[in-house]
Amino acid sequence: MSKTKRVFTNFLRFLAFGATIAAVVVMVTSHESTMVLNLTFTAKYSNDPVFKYFVIAEAIASGYSLIVLLFSRFQNSLWRLVLILDFVVAMLLSSSVSAAVAIAHVGKKGNDHAGWLPICGQVPKFCDHVTGALVAAFAAAIIYLVLISSSLYSVLNLLP
Amino acid sequence: MSKTKRVFTNFLRFLAFGATIAAVVVMVTSHESTMVLNLTFTAKYSNDPVFKYFVIAEAIASGYSLIVLLFSRFQNSLWRLVLILDFVVAMLLSSSVSAAVAIAHVGKKGNDHAGWLPICGQVPKFCDHVTGALVAAFAAAIIYLVLISSSLYSVLNLLP
Repeated sequence: MSKTKRVFTNFLRFLAFGATIAAVVVMVTSHESTMVLNLTFTAKYSNDPVFKYFVIAEAIASGYSLIVLLFSRFQNSLWRLVLILDFVVAMLLSSSVSAAVAIAHVGKKGNDHAGWLPICGQVPKFCDHVTGALVAAFAAAIIYLVLISSSLYSVLNLLP
Repeated sequence: MSKTKRVFTNFLRFLAFGATIAAVVVMVTSHESTMVLNLTFTAKYSNDPVFKYFVIAEAIASGYSLIVLLFSRFQNSLWRLVLILDFVVAMLLSSSVSAAVAIAHVGKKGNDHAGWLPICGQVPKFCDHVTGALVAAFAAAIIYLVLISSSLYSVLNLLP
């Protein structure tokens, strides 16, 4: 791997690390309480299994990005493994973002047919946090897509 | 690509084609009507944007698998493009399955905190169809994971 290419790859990994850690922090700190008919109603990420999955998946991607960054000087010997793990992490990111967007969409718009009411009117700050986390996670997924395309391009160019 | 390897790859693509087309058909044919408080309530996939996205994504994956199968004898010259498109299709499958599972989970279990009631008690046949489509789509995603791992393995072995 050339030096420029390595700097570019490490920069992308650093961005991906930042985006995933931001997604985790913004999602975990999202909670809001509101009074509905004299009952206190608290919205937080851990009330929904999909948001829990989102936090776990983003944390894994974040940890993985950091580890690969820290060991980037040994990357040459392990780059085959890194390429395959990058691919697995990209699938995980695309899966967690999609699932969380699906639930967030119900939270924002509801679903008349199923009788699910939107909740963002009651807990707007919670919804803002979730939206922020989703945007960061989506950015991380795109960064991984660029990373893998760039790795595949290099690999395919190396071929005889 | 050796002959055995090509037969194996084509077999996997055929399975992926079968699984994605099954997911589309089972999801599209899922509709059930029920009476709730003298009101007729019809559950169908097109009532939910996530299920629509699911059908479109699975149909794209299905069409792509068929095209690559049909042109498999010309695959040698285009295999670089096929490898990258396989990767994009795998991301699409993982994204559509995850989003649909998230909504199906709310349909089955509801979410007490958000006040979303489960609907599977009212429309059990609809839920069975959705579950079937999700299983088929999940299988297709796994098949694409195997396909890509096998391609990457071959590519990495070709390297000097």
